[in-house]
Amino acid sequence: MSEFDLKRNLTMLTDFYEITMANGYFMNGHKDTVAYFDMFFRTVPDKGGFVIMAGIEQLVEYLRSLHFTDEDIDYLSKKGFAPEFLDYLKDFRFCCDVWAVPEGTPIFPGEPIVKVRGPVVQAQFIETMVLLCINHQSLIATKANRVVRAADGRTVMEFGSRRAQGCDGAIYGARAAVIGGCVGTACTISDEVFGTPALGTMAHSWVQLFDTELEAFKTYARQYPSACTLLVDTYNVLESGIPNAIKTFDEVLKPLGKRPKGVRIDSGDITYLSRKARKMLDAAGYEDCAIVVSNSLDEYIIKDMLLQGAKVDSFGVGERLITSSSSPVLGGVYKLVAVEKDGEIIPKIKISENVQKITTPGDKKLYRFYDKSTGKAIADLIAFRHEVIDPSKPYVLFDPDYTWKKKTVTDFECRELLEPLFEGGKCVYKERTLMEIKEYCADQVTTLWDEVLRFENPHNYYVDLSRDVWETKQKLIEENRGRKDNA
Amino acid sequence: MSEFDLKRNLTMLTDFYEITMANGYFMNGHKDTVAYFDMFFRTVPDKGGFVIMAGIEQLVEYLRSLHFTDEDIDYLSKKGFAPEFLDYLKDFRFCCDVWAVPEGTPIFPGEPIVKVRGPVVQAQFIETMVLLCINHQSLIATKANRVVRAADGRTVMEFGSRRAQGCDGAIYGARAAVIGGCVGTACTISDEVFGTPALGTMAHSWVQLFDTELEAFKTYARQYPSACTLLVDTYNVLESGIPNAIKTFDEVLKPLGKRPKGVRIDSGDITYLSRKARKMLDAAGYEDCAIVVSNSLDEYIIKDMLLQGAKVDSFGVGERLITSSSSPVLGGVYKLVAVEKDGEIIPKIKISENVQKITTPGDKKLYRFYDKSTGKAIADLIAFRHEVIDPSKPYVLFDPDYTWKKKTVTDFECRELLEPLFEGGKCVYKERTLMEIKEYCADQVTTLWDEVLRFENPHNYYVDLSRDVWETKQKLIEENRGRKDNA
Repeated sequence: MSEFDLKRNLTMLTDFYEITMANGYFMNGHKDTVAYFDMFFRTVPDKGGFVIMAGIEQLVEYLRSLHFTDEDIDYLSKKGFAPEFLDYLKDFRFCCDVWAVPEGTPIFPGEPIVKVRGPVVQAQFIETMVLLCINHQSLIATKANRVVRAADGRTVMEFGSRRAQGCDGAIYGARAAVIGGCVGTACTISDEVFGTPALGTMAHSWVQLFDTELEAFKTYARQYPSACTLLVDTYNVLESGIPNAIKTFDEVLKPLGKRPKGVRIDSGDITYLSRKARKMLDAAGYEDCAIVVSNSLDEYIIKDMLLQGAKVDSFGVGERLITSSSSPVLGGVYKLVAVEKDGEIIPKIKISENVQKITTPGDKKLYRFYDKSTGKAIADLIAFRHEVIDPSKPYVLFDPDYTWKKKTVTDFECRELLEPLFEGGKCVYKERTLMEIKEYCADQVTTLWDEVLRFENPHNYYVDLSRDVWETKQKLIEENRGRKDNA
Repeated sequence: MSEFDLKRNLTMLTDFYEITMANGYFMNGHKDTVAYFDMFFRTVPDKGGFVIMAGIEQLVEYLRSLHFTDEDIDYLSKKGFAPEFLDYLKDFRFCCDVWAVPEGTPIFPGEPIVKVRGPVVQAQFIETMVLLCINHQSLIATKANRVVRAADGRTVMEFGSRRAQGCDGAIYGARAAVIGGCVGTACTISDEVFGTPALGTMAHSWVQLFDTELEAFKTYARQYPSACTLLVDTYNVLESGIPNAIKTFDEVLKPLGKRPKGVRIDSGDITYLSRKARKMLDAAGYEDCAIVVSNSLDEYIIKDMLLQGAKVDSFGVGERLITSSSSPVLGGVYKLVAVEKDGEIIPKIKISENVQKITTPGDKKLYRFYDKSTGKAIADLIAFRHEVIDPSKPYVLFDPDYTWKKKTVTDFECRELLEPLFEGGKCVYKERTLMEIKEYCADQVTTLWDEVLRFENPHNYYVDLSRDVWETKQKLIEENRGRKDNA
């Protein structure tokens, strides 16, 4: 993990109401009340079949470095919070338990992907950053994975820094894009900090600066003979760019015994141009010269281009990936699901007329069932922490909404997905390199059925509740219906 | 300006090709070549009539603190850049001239909103951050301005940190939202750093933590008697939330001589609920209790709600504002427009089959013409730097695409919009407080005709070229047509 992440104190990147509540809990007998919060999301961006978990490493960094500076205390004091509470913040020591699904894992609506247990004052306070870190990077990793799958084996580079929503959008977005499957990024600082391989050759300005395109190309080829990719669309791709590129390869690279790396097309009808360019390059003996394309690409356009026979070896994807522009929000929420009282765990629920918005109460864990013979993921199961699944016995899964939909699974393996990040405030997160996470992600995506991987109308992967969890939820819904009795 | 911005070294937040080119220029006789770059955008997000300029302060911070650390040099050395170039970076001193349209100004497609003049090595290097800072904050300021205009005098709060695209998306997004007209934000750190007033009361978890809603409300009211806004939709707004809120106001606030601040509704049919809630509150003698609403709002929903008679005093707008989700990219570009050669300024052009993508060459400035009698903005004019407009004489504006469209303006004032930020690398930026920028923005928006302010099918505000600029552009288009001669 890089020192880079530590250089800002982001403790105060929290919604103001977290502090209002924390102060309120602290001052009203709940200083030591232990609460349980779950993070989950309700819908998959782009109506896809799954989300790729990402952002844990930044969340861990945030939680590890939580502390209130004198300026923070001073600011909060001016906002009128209680001196006792401020004293508590001065000596703040994070002491929650935190679990999360590891980065790179496919995750599904309704399941707890981050879980926090600890003093409600603290567990509440961290809500904003739990959501921000996971919502952002998971969104981008998910989009990148879609784009990479659309490219069907061709490489995808992340090119979007200039259109990202802020510096972190670029830096951590590039990281998430690599988790999702991009081979690299244009974002230099992400390479320096996270080891997302950075690449980049020339802009139109390079070509414009020289008196002629040919001079621009030849200068570049002489400077970078082993990494010569030329941007061929400053004036006219087929009439000028490709002929000048070939001339450059012939006259500069050939005498040096070098082969060209590629040409890049960044405008115009890329499908048409790539096919023509391919023919011209092949005819000139440069069958090994890659064609790289960019310009407002996304998974939909890439699929279409390939369907129409575009001759492309590599895609540079910018704004539509780094902002997930067709679906720019992952709407993860963080909800209170239980409170400890006199040593007992009391499940809590939030009721809503919108069924999807009703929370699943209790201290839970998350299992993924894999079919032993195929290795494919069958379903996820949300159970209470004390429940034990015995994979040697058949297990009856049932749909929590349509309970008559049942499925008995046998010959399965099951894996607990929530891994500890903090125990009593102590960081127990097992660091992985970015490339390990990227590989794990690619591997986990192969455990999903094609029906879940589909872009249009994917199959709803099963996220079921154990009988205990289901019954507890029903009971609480009944109890809380109306709640006129409160008034 | 806050120290906060300075705490990270973001020098390397640059697309890798900027470095490839900078090294290439440096090593190929262009170390001292002076180039001119313009930033401009081609389309307005959400098909709106204008964009609000924002992000200058962060760009200034970046440029002021540009420096390469030993780690940066080491990293670049491993990437194979030339030792002479790395020596130059070690002693890097920024020495460009930079101009920009001030934050809060309405800006239009095709006009130079940032302009850089300096050694091409440097002017090229900073491209990524020029674009990133301005694209991001202008996008959010523009969206906020739309939402604020839809709210028609009611207050709008920015509530989106948890769904922002990274920490900077939240922090600088909140800043931009205030420039665009939000009265405040939930983002605490933005308040601490920039003075975006932060507010926030309670989440559903507060209500859930207590045994009953009434207990939760009363505890809150006792803790915050002077700032009592209660979230009334945890169980049932009309059956439980509002009755419990009224009971709390009666039993806790009244004896203390306090009036309630508000109730917040965060789910359900808000238009319907707000009207019912208003009646109940009024009947109980709380006509002064504000109704605050939130939950996936944007300018379109707010307009619709008000059309249907929603009784709302304040809107909390989250993900759809902080990501500008219906149009999450401002596509600003940064193009080489001139090069100095032997003391002469040589205009440069980038040709494209797409007319909109053809750049406007030369060393230019930007005027805004205001009608003296109405104070309204009539048109913007892009002229060469040496051209002088004399407002005491009639001026003939003409459409650069449809040149027969002419308009003679008299009785006008004109104002140069590009202000210097750096002169020879020296920062000359005149700092303004966020509230000054916000007020300036609100004032400038009133200079636009209603036709430009429209959400649907706004009038295209005129951005015209001076005759000199127009003729130079035509000449260069002719010269560069085809450019087969280069091959």
